[in-house]
Amino acid sequence: MKGKAVVILSGGPDSSTAAYWAKNEGYDIYGITFRYGQIASREAEYAKLIAKRLGMNIKEVDISSVNEIFKHVTALCDRSLSMPSKFEPSLIVPFRNAIFLSIGVAYAISIDAKTIIYGAHASDSPFYPDCSRGFIEAFNQAIKAGTGLKIEVIAPFINMEKWEIIKLGAKLGVPYELTWSCYLDGSKHCGKCESCVNRKNAFKKAGIPDPAQYYSN
Amino acid sequence: MKGKAVVILSGGPDSSTAAYWAKNEGYDIYGITFRYGQIASREAEYAKLIAKRLGMNIKEVDISSVNEIFKHVTALCDRSLSMPSKFEPSLIVPFRNAIFLSIGVAYAISIDAKTIIYGAHASDSPFYPDCSRGFIEAFNQAIKAGTGLKIEVIAPFINMEKWEIIKLGAKLGVPYELTWSCYLDGSKHCGKCESCVNRKNAFKKAGIPDPAQYYSN
Repeated sequence: MKGKAVVILSGGPDSSTAAYWAKNEGYDIYGITFRYGQIASREAEYAKLIAKRLGMNIKEVDISSVNEIFKHVTALCDRSLSMPSKFEPSLIVPFRNAIFLSIGVAYAISIDAKTIIYGAHASDSPFYPDCSRGFIEAFNQAIKAGTGLKIEVIAPFINMEKWEIIKLGAKLGVPYELTWSCYLDGSKHCGKCESCVNRKNAFKKAGIPDPAQYYSN
Repeated sequence: MKGKAVVILSGGPDSSTAAYWAKNEGYDIYGITFRYGQIASREAEYAKLIAKRLGMNIKEVDISSVNEIFKHVTALCDRSLSMPSKFEPSLIVPFRNAIFLSIGVAYAISIDAKTIIYGAHASDSPFYPDCSRGFIEAFNQAIKAGTGLKIEVIAPFINMEKWEIIKLGAKLGVPYELTWSCYLDGSKHCGKCESCVNRKNAFKKAGIPDPAQYYSN
């Protein structure tokens, strides 16, 4: 066993694969997922399905009161903004992942875990600064200075493209039918938002069938 | 004018003085305060009183769902733990200030502020790692890498002892009767918890009358 690790789970394919990766590596894994006023609030339900399948404890933290800050800034939290099909700054939820990781650190301290698993990857890094290697390194310094403890965020996929994650996940047996990527909240994936487009392209490039149902292919 | 600044407000004397300091320096100030399941939940009400007196907008963010993480770890959030009169690790709320600052950064982005004012000071730094200069410097690097924006946390009191802050605040006209320090939730300050003791000592050393009412002097 590698000891306890907190896995930041969104309910999407990347963090779900990170959870399977961590379990496969021998970590004793604890999930944490967030409600932050995202339109796709059902992603938290998917995170719980993945956790259940993995037999992993999961903590759901409701910080939806921050939606008052996020709305008007990001299309992920505000239905009055248009939903882009490719990257636009309005897809960035301001410093969201730092908020998630900070609460993840608190959770790690509370259960005496030394590792936080973060599914950030190379396909997102150029667009989303809080998914970059530089951010993770700086954040780890902040953890060290701000807690005095040996707790570290690791991002096993930081040098991998999204399609490579899917390929790895297929080998690890990740049940991708229990993941949600869409930024909207239809009963199927919209198929048009940036996240749906990235998902479809990644499964295609990986040569793995995508079990998600889409309104628009 | 120095531009917009977000002030992290707890309702205590340090952050209240920081708000007065920032206004005096010419910042256009916006307050943010947090409910995180602290026993002293009334401190948020004091933060709002200070904001009102300053004519400052204040955002109250309720993340009390994190209390599930904080309880059992810190006496500030768990009535079943004993409340120390001097520093003990159980007074540390795990990585709390990183959580506050991360949400503060999101707020700054949403209102296009470039500065976050943080009342950390030299009397707390040796005990609370997330009040240290090293943490603030590392966190600023994380902001830079994680947002790509020029947003900075400044801690104007980082080299000052608590009594020096009170002395400065008295000159700036801070209405200390509108501040709350106690970790408990009596109708007066308990006078015995570490925070009450620190407050009493600071006012005494500054030679400023402390307007707080105490159960125990």
